[in-house]
Amino acid sequence: MIHFARRMKHMNRSEIREILKVTEDPEIISFAGGLPAPEAFPVAELREAASLALETAGTKALQYSLAEGLPSLRRKIAERSCTLWDANARMEDVQIVNGSQQALDFLGKIFLDEGDVVLCENPTYLAALSAFRAYGPRLVDVATDDEGMLPDDLERKLAAEKQARFIYVIPDFQNPTGRSWSLERRKALTDLADRFGVPVVEDNPYGELRFEGEFLPSLRALGNPDLTVSLGTFSKILAPGLRVAWLIAPPAILEQIILVKQAADLQPSTISQMQIDTYLERFDVNAQIARIRALYRTRRNCMAEAIRENMENAASFPFPQGGLFLWLRLAEGIDTKALLAESIARKVAYVPGEPFHANGGGSNTMRLNFSYMPEERIREGITRLAGLVKEH
Amino acid sequence: MIHFARRMKHMNRSEIREILKVTEDPEIISFAGGLPAPEAFPVAELREAASLALETAGTKALQYSLAEGLPSLRRKIAERSCTLWDANARMEDVQIVNGSQQALDFLGKIFLDEGDVVLCENPTYLAALSAFRAYGPRLVDVATDDEGMLPDDLERKLAAEKQARFIYVIPDFQNPTGRSWSLERRKALTDLADRFGVPVVEDNPYGELRFEGEFLPSLRALGNPDLTVSLGTFSKILAPGLRVAWLIAPPAILEQIILVKQAADLQPSTISQMQIDTYLERFDVNAQIARIRALYRTRRNCMAEAIRENMENAASFPFPQGGLFLWLRLAEGIDTKALLAESIARKVAYVPGEPFHANGGGSNTMRLNFSYMPEERIREGITRLAGLVKEH
Repeated sequence: MIHFARRMKHMNRSEIREILKVTEDPEIISFAGGLPAPEAFPVAELREAASLALETAGTKALQYSLAEGLPSLRRKIAERSCTLWDANARMEDVQIVNGSQQALDFLGKIFLDEGDVVLCENPTYLAALSAFRAYGPRLVDVATDDEGMLPDDLERKLAAEKQARFIYVIPDFQNPTGRSWSLERRKALTDLADRFGVPVVEDNPYGELRFEGEFLPSLRALGNPDLTVSLGTFSKILAPGLRVAWLIAPPAILEQIILVKQAADLQPSTISQMQIDTYLERFDVNAQIARIRALYRTRRNCMAEAIRENMENAASFPFPQGGLFLWLRLAEGIDTKALLAESIARKVAYVPGEPFHANGGGSNTMRLNFSYMPEERIREGITRLAGLVKEH
Repeated sequence: MIHFARRMKHMNRSEIREILKVTEDPEIISFAGGLPAPEAFPVAELREAASLALETAGTKALQYSLAEGLPSLRRKIAERSCTLWDANARMEDVQIVNGSQQALDFLGKIFLDEGDVVLCENPTYLAALSAFRAYGPRLVDVATDDEGMLPDDLERKLAAEKQARFIYVIPDFQNPTGRSWSLERRKALTDLADRFGVPVVEDNPYGELRFEGEFLPSLRALGNPDLTVSLGTFSKILAPGLRVAWLIAPPAILEQIILVKQAADLQPSTISQMQIDTYLERFDVNAQIARIRALYRTRRNCMAEAIRENMENAASFPFPQGGLFLWLRLAEGIDTKALLAESIARKVAYVPGEPFHANGGGSNTMRLNFSYMPEERIREGITRLAGLVKEH
């Protein structure tokens, strides 16, 4: 009998990943997963960028490189973060990681001893919960409405939880709910974090995919940059298969992150970073993002309309102004986990809402992805789902 | 004051990485680092492979993919491991990781609670020690000579250390010593591991770079495959900047690894895997490896000869039959850590031997890399180093 570490008891096979396996069946209409629309990937441009990078950099593109990431890519990320999010970041503040998931794992690793506390929205991104759970924390959820965490509840929990090590939030088009934080709530959060001296982690994979309304400043811009870690990624604006993302953090935190990066996998891929760096130099990433926005806006509209037409009295949802997800709440008593097998039998997949709740709840909710399926399949899928819900 | 996890106290900035930064100065003759010779990278072929992969797979090459890695690449790795190392592995036994360093981190994560024990060679790969230290183990070194661990000492320590969670070894052209285990010692190790029921991790990044002599079977072939984890990588036979490596393990261990992979970074890069998979299909990796062997053999010969000529009575080393490293032992009392600043002032870099010892020692040793520098610089560097040593 092989003896494994205690932490393995907290870790479960990712439900999203398991569902993704089922949804490889092309007959399935999949609202599960968080897949970007592949038809929006700039395949030809990325192919040219890879080729150019190898032509220009030669063997350097294939050699070991710095654990922090390539300076020229980090500089571009810092500049873009300043323009878009008023982030006041320099190249030196940026660490490249293999997808935002790696940033989440590293934050768990540098901050969390067993029994320490993470404060998070309720519900929140379930793979963040998995990353943190590897370090044995208590996950304390803060009451959350359509505008963000309720400041009263956050204050109460910051006061009560002396072992709170960071607050984890997704202020724009949250996963799973699609909700965005209001400016007032952002300010209330950064004020409280600063008052209690607890770091804030803002995870922002979808922020650029805003379909309407104004960009709101980042928490780094609003709050104390010495207490703020900001995550961003190329997965949703270029392509997730490249596995290139970043975090922006103050020096005291970056110093710990770099130690963890070296021990965890030495460095990010040299060639993937150069490929993206070359893409950003040679091609128009803003035009690329505009194309994605237009596509996803249409699909969001299509899904919202189909739900209103087919499930008027059976379901409600906060209308997402961007991102990839729509959060459906069914009548109390309907168990979306139990419903999933039937739904998959009808060739429609979604993710049940319950696992997004750190401490249970939300059994009548589900996360629907609207970015991946074309309109006619969205309509067909929602119609089938509505039929199933009506039977229950 | 930000509060970090206890484990951060065990983690230090990687000395190798810090030294690598100095050695970016092109004037430095660097025997530090573990850099493969860039002139051996198959740049044109890898460029064509990336282009072909994107052309053939299209958007699939840029989309999310399975946490385990691409089946067709895993199949090729399994087949090659069977041919070369008699590994009796199937596609299902292979997990793709971002460089072997990630496999080391994952092994620490699945096996080690604070205070658990890892048994390792003395000296051993220092970045493996860093990966394990993140989980707070006791690192117990086993007495080691030119043929591998001494079975008596290993048996004594297995009997004494009830919390021994795995034995970590590099049987071929070890980092840092360049030594290879004899067949008898391999058998003694697997017998003892099996008797005590303790898993063995065999790290084999250099095995294919054998300059002379016969391939010896892997520990997986010799021992109990249910207790053996085998690590391999494309870093030393293709290019490290791609960050693609693998581990082969029994189902009970792989089940834990996949949980950790999902939580740590979801999956390996889709496009990098496809690039390598395409390379292996379209080009001749054996010819590529033969070219590397010929190049490194020449450089090893050059370095060994230069040491014999210039440091005859001042230094000794085990003659490496392959790999990237040569391990130099100077007279007792010479401190290679203290010597480093002077050496770098003379534009020669190496890695002091002491950090490769889990519990101290080896202050008169150094690791010399012979793969990276051309012959004339090897000769010049060794001559300068010999001058410095003679002065002390």
